[in-house]
Amino acid sequence: MKISSILERCCHICKLPGRVMGIRVLRFSLVVILVLLLVAGALTALLPSVKEDKMLMLRREIKSQGKSTMDSFTLIMQTYNRTDLLLKLLNHYQAVPNLHKVIVVWNNIGEKAPDELWNSLGPHPIPVIFKQQTANRMRNRLQVFPELETNAVLMVDDDTLISTPDLVFAFSVWQQFPDQIVGFVPRKHVSTLSGIYSYGSFEMQAPGSGNGDQYSMVLIGASFFNSKYLEFFQRQPAAVHALIDDTQNCDDIAMNFIIAKHIGKTSGIFVKPVNMDNLEKETNSGYSGMWHRAEHALQRSYCINKLVNIYDSMPLKYSNIMISQFGFPYANYKRKI
Amino acid sequence: MKISSILERCCHICKLPGRVMGIRVLRFSLVVILVLLLVAGALTALLPSVKEDKMLMLRREIKSQGKSTMDSFTLIMQTYNRTDLLLKLLNHYQAVPNLHKVIVVWNNIGEKAPDELWNSLGPHPIPVIFKQQTANRMRNRLQVFPELETNAVLMVDDDTLISTPDLVFAFSVWQQFPDQIVGFVPRKHVSTLSGIYSYGSFEMQAPGSGNGDQYSMVLIGASFFNSKYLEFFQRQPAAVHALIDDTQNCDDIAMNFIIAKHIGKTSGIFVKPVNMDNLEKETNSGYSGMWHRAEHALQRSYCINKLVNIYDSMPLKYSNIMISQFGFPYANYKRKI
Repeated sequence: MKISSILERCCHICKLPGRVMGIRVLRFSLVVILVLLLVAGALTALLPSVKEDKMLMLRREIKSQGKSTMDSFTLIMQTYNRTDLLLKLLNHYQAVPNLHKVIVVWNNIGEKAPDELWNSLGPHPIPVIFKQQTANRMRNRLQVFPELETNAVLMVDDDTLISTPDLVFAFSVWQQFPDQIVGFVPRKHVSTLSGIYSYGSFEMQAPGSGNGDQYSMVLIGASFFNSKYLEFFQRQPAAVHALIDDTQNCDDIAMNFIIAKHIGKTSGIFVKPVNMDNLEKETNSGYSGMWHRAEHALQRSYCINKLVNIYDSMPLKYSNIMISQFGFPYANYKRKI
Repeated sequence: MKISSILERCCHICKLPGRVMGIRVLRFSLVVILVLLLVAGALTALLPSVKEDKMLMLRREIKSQGKSTMDSFTLIMQTYNRTDLLLKLLNHYQAVPNLHKVIVVWNNIGEKAPDELWNSLGPHPIPVIFKQQTANRMRNRLQVFPELETNAVLMVDDDTLISTPDLVFAFSVWQQFPDQIVGFVPRKHVSTLSGIYSYGSFEMQAPGSGNGDQYSMVLIGASFFNSKYLEFFQRQPAAVHALIDDTQNCDDIAMNFIIAKHIGKTSGIFVKPVNMDNLEKETNSGYSGMWHRAEHALQRSYCINKLVNIYDSMPLKYSNIMISQFGFPYANYKRKI
């Protein structure tokens, strides 16, 4: 419509006599320029929906993901002296669906965190924050990190590779049981006639009189749990923190005590991993992990008894529920006929 | 003390002169009788704690069990024309821990239920009630039986043998999820572009885009569910009952619809059976079970679409949670290293 009225006016102008021929050419040029500007305007309106920066779209998606605090999780990985494993694992974990951010708790006190190396190998799918620590403490990973925005924490040891299908499934289970630790490593305590407890795994006597085994803890080093439990941990008696500092151990046992006490039922749900590996043999650092220390297992029994003393109760509860993903691997539910 | 005072009196009497010799003998006899009675009384007081009728004790235990309505369950087994299988199965199920009572829904209209045979082969651990039906209907098993005293129903088809460890474990799972069907047979519905649904099992397309499969129904013919759902079923629109009567099928699909609608989440939880068998090949009755009818599978798809129509919604929800018993069979949770 616009163009035709312009042409009408143009024709009207064109009908003017004599000496206005120069003006006619000028006005015709103006009309042409106007038409071109209109066309350019139309193109500009169309272009962005076709040629939008895909990276920009991806960043927008991630920002909106961050606002759904139940729909994504934060990976917290504490590391000491196994940077080769750490970087290999970060390459894997950074690509896991629903991951919001990674917080690396850098316990190598004398050494600078590899921020520059990390950035030089970007871009990365999600933000990774390296938190330089002032002391090499086991419980550093249980701080209330200001960078943590999600309700869910995925906590993984710096030598543990958990496959993406396992993580996606376990996260979906956590969303159904958000007050419990949903993880891949079950352990238990056993009572003895003397009232002294022992810590152990499947090789230990199964509690109760029925079939099968039971677990009463799910270790946090390969698990999802509610980020509010980090605050709970900080509020525990000083004796609990001191125990963990003295042993450089048992932070996970303490977390199970805290959660079981809080919810009045079993602290965790065991999800059987389909594909989870420990990479510690692959490190060139010469460092082999805390659980190889001679006193490690005994310490954990010691911790249980100390914690029962501190809390004046044994809040851990047994469970024999093992969760697997229906149909993964294929037809894993078919009956033996 | 009593005996000595009697003896004293006796001696006193004995000291009496002459002609009382006859009385002396009489009194001595009385003393002997008295002593014997006292001894017999003492024995009677001791005997019951040693020789108590064990059957009586068992009956008392069962009565007190019946009062804990969450701690025991009622088996409801509907049967048609496979009495050989029924009796073999009853021999197995009657011994399952935490079983309160069995209700046999006797659909053999022209035939008398085997009460006499059953009683002649007693005593039995728990009561078994044979309920003679007036018409051979699939939905007879979903009546609100007055004899049912427990919160939990175990419903089993009359050709299905579920091992005791499976039942004990699944019951413990039901106690943790009492509003859902906890059972051993998962099925699903699939959507199609036309909006028409189809019913199927693992061979059908897995819904969603992730790994593995999903289920949206747990069949009631090998499951635990809350007995209140029998009342719910009775309250459903007449069209639902008519559908089940017309097809002699789909009562279990209807139950899944009802429960999913009521709780707003997936109707059931699948527990993977370790040892569950179908005995239909072992019957001498010549009868082979409803699911062998040519139209059976098609009917079930038909039922889903009819129910969606009746309820004006598709309330079924998908789940991929598969539960197994931790440590049974032994070390079933060990990682593949």
